[in-house]
Amino acid sequence: TKQYRVTLLPGDGIGPEIIAVAVDVLNSVGKQCDIGFEFNTALIGGSAIDDTGEPLPQETLDTCSQSDAILLAAIGGYKWDNLPRKQRPETGLLGLRAGLGLFANLRPATILPQLIDASTLKREVVEGVDIMVVRELTGGIYFGQPKGIFATETGEKRGVNTMAYTEAEINRIVKLGFETAQKRRGKLCSVDKANVLDVSQMWRDRVMAMAADYPNVELSHLYVDNAAMQLVRAPKQFDTIVTGNLFGDILSDAAAMLTGSIGMLPSASLSADGPGVYEPVHGSAPDIAGQDKANPLAQVLSAAMMLRYGLNESSAATKIEQAVTRVLDAGYRTGDIMSEGMTAVGCQGMGEALLQVL
Amino acid sequence: TKQYRVTLLPGDGIGPEIIAVAVDVLNSVGKQCDIGFEFNTALIGGSAIDDTGEPLPQETLDTCSQSDAILLAAIGGYKWDNLPRKQRPETGLLGLRAGLGLFANLRPATILPQLIDASTLKREVVEGVDIMVVRELTGGIYFGQPKGIFATETGEKRGVNTMAYTEAEINRIVKLGFETAQKRRGKLCSVDKANVLDVSQMWRDRVMAMAADYPNVELSHLYVDNAAMQLVRAPKQFDTIVTGNLFGDILSDAAAMLTGSIGMLPSASLSADGPGVYEPVHGSAPDIAGQDKANPLAQVLSAAMMLRYGLNESSAATKIEQAVTRVLDAGYRTGDIMSEGMTAVGCQGMGEALLQVL
Ligand SMILES: CC(C)[C@H](C(=O)O)[C@@H](O)C(=O)O
Ligand SMILES: CC(C)[C@H](C(=O)O)[C@@H](O)C(=O)O
Repeated sequence: TKQYRVTLLPGDGIGPEIIAVAVDVLNSVGKQCDIGFEFNTALIGGSAIDDTGEPLPQETLDTCSQSDAILLAAIGGYKWDNLPRKQRPETGLLGLRAGLGLFANLRPATILPQLIDASTLKREVVEGVDIMVVRELTGGIYFGQPKGIFATETGEKRGVNTMAYTEAEINRIVKLGFETAQKRRGKLCSVDKANVLDVSQMWRDRVMAMAADYPNVELSHLYVDNAAMQLVRAPKQFDTIVTGNLFGDILSDAAAMLTGSIGMLPSASLSADGPGVYEPVHGSAPDIAGQDKANPLAQVLSAAMMLRYGLNESSAATKIEQAVTRVLDAGYRTGDIMSEGMTAVGCQGMGEALLQVL
Repeated sequence: TKQYRVTLLPGDGIGPEIIAVAVDVLNSVGKQCDIGFEFNTALIGGSAIDDTGEPLPQETLDTCSQSDAILLAAIGGYKWDNLPRKQRPETGLLGLRAGLGLFANLRPATILPQLIDASTLKREVVEGVDIMVVRELTGGIYFGQPKGIFATETGEKRGVNTMAYTEAEINRIVKLGFETAQKRRGKLCSVDKANVLDVSQMWRDRVMAMAADYPNVELSHLYVDNAAMQLVRAPKQFDTIVTGNLFGDILSDAAAMLTGSIGMLPSASLSADGPGVYEPVHGSAPDIAGQDKANPLAQVLSAAMMLRYGLNESSAATKIEQAVTRVLDAGYRTGDIMSEGMTAVGCQGMGEALLQVL
């Protein structure tokens, strides 16, 4: 039996409920595939603030570093929104990304045939959409220095953030972009704002230089404003998108919303050689927390991504993905994806349905 | 007869064709309303580069400064894409914005009932959408210093841009945002990334402080990633959006594309007390330039915005807007908005149809 150490970060809001379902599913698949999991739970976000005063206790970072993979649920809530920046749940998440060197964020936006009507876009526009956004996650304007609020010569306040990338930072994420495209449909679209930003011009120059190493990848470039338009106009034109931290934040959310069911979308955040973090794209949904209403499927699919990308257990990953397809085919729906004629279930009910088909 | 000096900037691609239609329409409406126009044509963008070596000759800026309003068509094209930044068409546009102090960019995204099927979104999602994006246009990361490509200590290259706002810059655009909301449906949504960026936190603090002066405006705040999602999920929730330069660039394009017919959308760029620039949201479409295929209606509606916002001639503006409605009702369509059963016309044909109904 292979044994993996997995750190669980339930976080806030619906986090604990959905991660419990994912743990059950992992244990069930583990038995079938002769894989064992040693789960450790640690604090992050608002619940960590309440307990320890900080959103990312050192102990959590240590536990994560020593594990093979990390399954994160979601962080944040109204309760902590007005704390100073250092004590905000989001700061814990950014600290986790920096602390573990998670430079790459993979965010698939896939339309599931069973849920196509959940999209606000017309069926013919979104049918078959399958986009992977490869977002840089530890650089750019999220981390660039200088930043802060400074006094100008006239005594006025000036807020400043710096969007910066070094060549090495660009190289490693763009390389992953090309490699991801190679494993998919062979099309890569790099998104920047090179007509205005120097940092984007450097990004584009690097991408063009690296293209020679990937002759089998069809490369294109879009300005970020045009990319936002094209996602709405004709999303099927995209296969893999590679972009910086801020543009990736915006575009991956827009792409996710095209599917109409962000309760279904997982993500992976990867480092060069340490453990990765796997988490749903959706948030902590404090308004429905503790009511057994949450959709656990994005969390369950995040566990599948963990198996595939983090632990190299792709057959176990496939089993989970197939189980999700089968419960959807069987008509089980949580509230967020409910439609006429389907069977409404809660978070736990969805978990039981998954265990049954597994 | 009131007399207005209007500078025409046809620019590149389809620019000359569409601006010619707008000039005819202005002259026709002018006669009816006892308004006279003195048109001066000046160079900008690629055509200026070809003629003078620079995208914004000083003479153009002078002509613009001395006029009552500026009607711009569109700039750019493949031909100039690989020139150094200083000689790029876009640099001319940014120079015009800075040179005239055009700190506010108003971009309406309105669904016209006649063109609702052009949207990729479902009818019930977009019917009645009427959003005004108020974008800051002379600050933020577009102009912030330092910027450039620098060598790091290790000799590696680092690309840098700075997203910065002073309080005064935020105050004037946010004030315009509140005032715009007051003239519309009384709802203002301020978009930032205050959970990550210091400059956004300052932005949000200012917006909250100013809200007291506008008790009749319903204010909300969204993070930019969530705003991109909400535009796709439920665009009718928005009335007026106020945001910084970069976020406004991205979101106004996404909002425009919701309508499915960006060949219809005008925009206005305003300064504190000098002349404003009025231009279509769409680009210069070099692939169809000179073929009488372009849709001139966004340019014509930009002329209407010029009358309304720049020259305070709102009854003339209304006449133009009504003429556009009437040609659409009569079934005239250029290629970009053509649908079954309608009458296909070219750019000039659309112009003639407008003159006829006027
Ligand atoms: C919560 C926030 C800091 C975060 C980000 O901006 O990266 C979130 O929006 C995300 O995309 O994971
Ligand atoms: C052409 C480019 C510099 C410009 C911008 O980014 O502002 C354009 O996208 C726009 O929105 O007017």
